[in-house]
Parts: sequence; structure tokens; C-alpha cells
Amino acid sequence: MKLNIAVLAGDGIGPEIMPQAIGVLNAVGKKFNHEFVYKEALCGAHAIDEVGDPFPEETFKVCMDADAVLFAAVGDPRFDNDPTLKVRPETGLLAMRKQLGLFANVRPVATFDCLLHKSPLKEEIIKGADFVVIRELTGGMYFGEKYQDNDKAYDTDIYHRHEIERILKVAFEFAMNRNKHLTVVDKANVLASSRLWRQIAQEMEPQYPEVSVDYMFIDNASMRVLTEPRFFDVIVTENTFGDILTDETSAITGSMGLQPSSSLGEHTPLFEPVHGSWPQAAGKNIANPMAMILSAAMMLEHFGLKEEGAAIRKACDDALENNIRTPEIQVEGVRSYGTKEIGEWIANRI
Amino acid sequence: MKLNIAVLAGDGIGPEIMPQAIGVLNAVGKKFNHEFVYKEALCGAHAIDEVGDPFPEETFKVCMDADAVLFAAVGDPRFDNDPTLKVRPETGLLAMRKQLGLFANVRPVATFDCLLHKSPLKEEIIKGADFVVIRELTGGMYFGEKYQDNDKAYDTDIYHRHEIERILKVAFEFAMNRNKHLTVVDKANVLASSRLWRQIAQEMEPQYPEVSVDYMFIDNASMRVLTEPRFFDVIVTENTFGDILTDETSAITGSMGLQPSSSLGEHTPLFEPVHGSWPQAAGKNIANPMAMILSAAMMLEHFGLKEEGAAIRKACDDALENNIRTPEIQVEGVRSYGTKEIGEWIANRI
Ligand SMILES: CC(C)[C@H](C(=O)O)[C@@H](O)C(=O)O
Ligand SMILES: CC(C)[C@H](C(=O)O)[C@@H](O)C(=O)O
Repeated sequence: MKLNIAVLAGDGIGPEIMPQAIGVLNAVGKKFNHEFVYKEALCGAHAIDEVGDPFPEETFKVCMDADAVLFAAVGDPRFDNDPTLKVRPETGLLAMRKQLGLFANVRPVATFDCLLHKSPLKEEIIKGADFVVIRELTGGMYFGEKYQDNDKAYDTDIYHRHEIERILKVAFEFAMNRNKHLTVVDKANVLASSRLWRQIAQEMEPQYPEVSVDYMFIDNASMRVLTEPRFFDVIVTENTFGDILTDETSAITGSMGLQPSSSLGEHTPLFEPVHGSWPQAAGKNIANPMAMILSAAMMLEHFGLKEEGAAIRKACDDALENNIRTPEIQVEGVRSYGTKEIGEWIANRI
Repeated sequence: MKLNIAVLAGDGIGPEIMPQAIGVLNAVGKKFNHEFVYKEALCGAHAIDEVGDPFPEETFKVCMDADAVLFAAVGDPRFDNDPTLKVRPETGLLAMRKQLGLFANVRPVATFDCLLHKSPLKEEIIKGADFVVIRELTGGMYFGEKYQDNDKAYDTDIYHRHEIERILKVAFEFAMNRNKHLTVVDKANVLASSRLWRQIAQEMEPQYPEVSVDYMFIDNASMRVLTEPRFFDVIVTENTFGDILTDETSAITGSMGLQPSSSLGEHTPLFEPVHGSWPQAAGKNIANPMAMILSAAMMLEHFGLKEEGAAIRKACDDALENNIRTPEIQVEGVRSYGTKEIGEWIANRI
């Protein structure tokens, strides 16, 4: 297979972890006889500095022409203190999502037995948790009408039927391929938009008779993922609730540096680690490249390359088991490894 | 002191836990020589059944004429399956908050050493956590313009300057009386309403030079309360974020049945347990009355009756230490106590 991959390394640790994912992909290409063609493009603070736009037209084109986008992270403390700035790395992120039509953000929440002790949750609660959160990514308050003056401000949490239907379809299909249990998270006891979500989900239920569906309020869900994470199989929710819930669920694994995600939609699919740009670590060769590498695995699996994805996952597991780890997850008394060494170890393993 | 107290027992376990709080208050009145006068009023499913309105005008009047409202819980599964029903217990709750102008919901997050093992978090993480979450309760998406048809729906997250100023004032003052550390939780990188919150908080900072203020995005906060709950002293946030965050923070204590709260505002202050109406337990004499009793303690403290509040807290601690506990928190092998027995034990202790 030949895959054209747009490579958006972005800011902070992005330019360090991305080459590791590419090194691993090259190893996979060699072993399984695939051709991966990479095209780099600017984004984030980096792109603001170079061309004054966090998601330049040229980058958009590179993404549209590719089969898949590999994205690392954007964000820079220089832009953090003033969230009112018009041009910020995050605005580029939102533009990217909207322009590429990436309406479904898929975050698997998986634990690693050897890292369970890093979870803030008790081991007996988190052990064996394995679910996917699907967050709507191009609607809701993020993109609804906004207004602000000195005396009042508002945002509009708006959803149209077609936006809800397409994300629920993704969620039902994920459930069909997993344990057939879908939890629709909303706030239908308060919000009109949630009531429309719930109505449409109920309309769609008969199309997926094998899927057992339950409805849960977001406040309740924020507790339940802590007290009973194994309850869940597939969760689907709107953009803002998903932002909060996915960060919460990535924290409970104890291995944020290992969580990949995909964003699917109308055009080119995108694959990215759940963690951010970690600017404090930039240039230090200390960031864990595994979430980036596992994002590449998700990409291959998306194109049906199951065996190839599995090979990457296995190599990552082996790295962990052999204590080829970055400082924050290294076993006490064992020397830790750098970003590059870990990437190379995994690539060699394949 | 004489206090006129509106008593709203509501639904589910409400009518069982409320008499226990009153029993304890009577014991306090006797010991410290205060007069507590109670006036009961209908609310919730109960009120729908009797007069067709979950927050009847008559109840509103009783509340307005009182010095304080003691509220247990509302909610009934009969109304749960159809969140589009116009008349539901929750609509009464929202009407109550709005009509009584209860704009500040104050939820202390406190742990009990002997119940730490019940927390989903590891003991070393949760131990010693002690903070207050202040949730705006009468604005935002809960009360902004709503619209719904078959094809689209929206809610409006709107805040006016005066609404933001008054809740921030409450938060700054709580911080002054505690460890002088305030965390303003918002989503200012995306929402216009959050940007106004942040702007106003920054304007107010100089009035409280002793308070150190930090700003945190809600997604980040939802992780940080899990990984580092001791970081926090006072958190303030808007209605929807507060709904999610307070439920999350009440889950991490491992003792939901012991968390009281107050709602303060323009008129009569209200005191209520954080837990809900737990309809499955109604009539079984198994619900823990302590959150209700501790809500009464918060009420007394609100009126400056520090010693009286402390006496209730001490009696509750003693009950826990003597294993006078309901089944879900009882030590293995020890017989558990009923709602009534626990209430009476605490009242006697005082
Ligand atoms: C940076 C921010 C705009 C973004 C979001 O809120 O979507 C981030 O938190 C995320 O979850 O990817
Ligand atoms: C019942 C519901 C409307 C209410 C809310 O969302 O405010 C509840 O969850 C709460 O937190 O008191």
C-alpha cells in the first residue's frame, strides 16, 4: 500500500516526537512492504512566526491532498497569558478541525498494566478499563455565534440534526465493532441541544438493535468514569462535554504520554497524541514519543493494516516491559531513556 | 437566637433524612439556648403530585419569609425517562434557584480520614484535600435563551457583568477567609463568556492583594482535581462547568453521603446535601443522614453560630469513629445503623 501522509509537527515537543513516529513507520514500511510518503507542513505558534497564520492555506492544501494527517501538538506559552489574542495556536487548531471537517474525535482509553500504579485511581478500580470516548469536534459552543462587550458576553451551543446524526453513526458503528454498549452523555434535563441529541439517538436505536444504549447526564458521567470506569464501552458526547470528559478520562489511565487519538470526518483523517505540546520539555529529549507512535499505529489500523498496527503496539509494550521508558514513568533506580532512544528502540524491534 | 427555617424535604430519601437534621437542630437549640421554628413546604415530584407544580408559589413564600431554607433533595424516576416533559422535579429546582436568587452554590470538598479507603483515588493523593468549589447557579446555559425544533437546537451561555462580579466577590471573600488561593476555572481559549469572566476577575484582583489568583481551563481542572486535589483552596466557575466539576469533586472524597452545601444569594440562603433523592432507598431507613445534618451545621455557621456548628461536626465525627454508620460505609463485619438511629445518636451526643 502507498500512503501519502501530511506531517504537522507543530510546537514544543512536536518536532522531537514526530521523527520517532516516522522512524517507526519506515520500519513498518520496510518489513511489510508499504510505501509511506511524507509531506511536512507548518502549524501552530511555529506557523504564526513564519507566516502569521497558525493554520496556513498551504498547510490546509497539504492535508487535503494527503491520505492521512499525522499531527503532534500546538501551543506556546508566549500566547497563553492573553486568551483574547485573535491569532493564537489554538485558533489554528480549531480552523484545522473545521476546514478538514474532522467532526469525530476518537479517544481510546486504555490502561497499561505496568503503569497502573501511576493512575490517580486505585488499581482495583482502573484495572481492565477499556473504552472509547467519541467527542463531536466541529459544532457546539466552539463554533456557535459569540458576542462580547464590556457588560455581557455569550456563546451559542448550537447543533443541527445532520451534525448529530453523523457523529452518532460513528459512535454506533464503533459500538458494533466493540462490546455493543453505547453511552450517550448529555444534559438533557437542562439543555435543548441535549434534548435534540437524545431524541435523534433514540430514533437511531432501532437501526442498531444489537447495541444496548444508555443515556447519562454529564455530571453523572464525570463521577462514573472515576468510580466504575469498566462500566463503559463507547461514550459519545458533544464538543464541550467531550473536551472535559476526555481530559478526565485520559488522566485516569496514569499514562497520558501513551494515549493516541484519531479525528475522522469529511476529508482526510487525522491522528494525534492526546497530550499537548509540553513546551517546558522542548529540546530536552525527555518527552515520551509513544503516544505519537501509537497514533501512527491507529492510522495504519484505520487503513485496514491491522497486523502492522499490532506490530507497533507490541513493540511499544515490549519497550515498556524492558523499561525503555522516559523519566516520568521509569521504575525507580533504573536509568531512563530519551525520546530518540525510545523511538529507535521501537523501530528496531519492528 | 431565633431562626425561622423553611423545611423542604422533597422526594425520595428526603422525608427520612430531614427529620434527623431537625432532631439534631433541636438538640443544639436546647443545649445552646436557641429557638428554631420550622415551617414545612412542598417541592419536587411530591409537589407535582399534590398541586401540579414542583415549586409552588406557596413554597416560594414560605422560603422568602424564612431566615434560611433547609432543602433535602428532589427527583423521581417517574419523570426521568422523558427529559422533554415541561413539568419535572428539576424544573422546580431551577425555579427555586432563580426565584430565590441563589447565585452562589458553595460546596466544601472535605475528606474524612476514616473513609479515605472509599475514595476512588489513591489515599496518598486524596488525603488532606480540603477546598471549596463555588459554582455560579443562576446564569449561563441553564437560563439563557433556548430553542429546539426537529432540525436544530441551541442554548445560550450568557453572562452579564453584574452576575460575574457578584459571584467572584463571594469567591474572593471565601479565599480571604481560607488560604488565600483562588482558582478561576473557565474556557477562555474558546468561549467569549469565559473571556469576560477572566477580564472581570483580573480587574478585581487588585481589590484582594493578599489573594493569589490563578486561571485554569476547565479541561485541565477536571484532571488536576484528580492528580493533585491538594493544590486547590477555592475554585470558582460558571454554572455548567460547576455542575460537572462539583460532581467530580464530590466523587473523589469517597463520602458523597457526607457532603453538605449552601446556596447563597439575594434572598434567603439555602442549605442542602450534595447527594440526590436516591429513590431506590426511599422508605428503607438506610440512607445516611449526615450530609443533611452537616448542611444544618453549615446553616448555623452561616449565622455566626460557630460553636454550635462545631458541636454538630464533632458529633458526626464521633458517630463515624464509633462505627455508627449506614451499610455502604460500614466497616466489614460490624452491624450497620439505620437513618433514624444515626440521627438520634448524633442528637443525643449533642
Ligand atoms: C486547545 C483547545 C482549544 C482544545 C479544545 O478545547 O478542543 C484542547 O483542549 C483539546 O481538547 O484539543
Ligand atoms: C438536577 C439538575 C438540574 C441539577 C443541575 O444540573 O444543576 C443537579 O445536577 C445539580 O447539580 O444540582
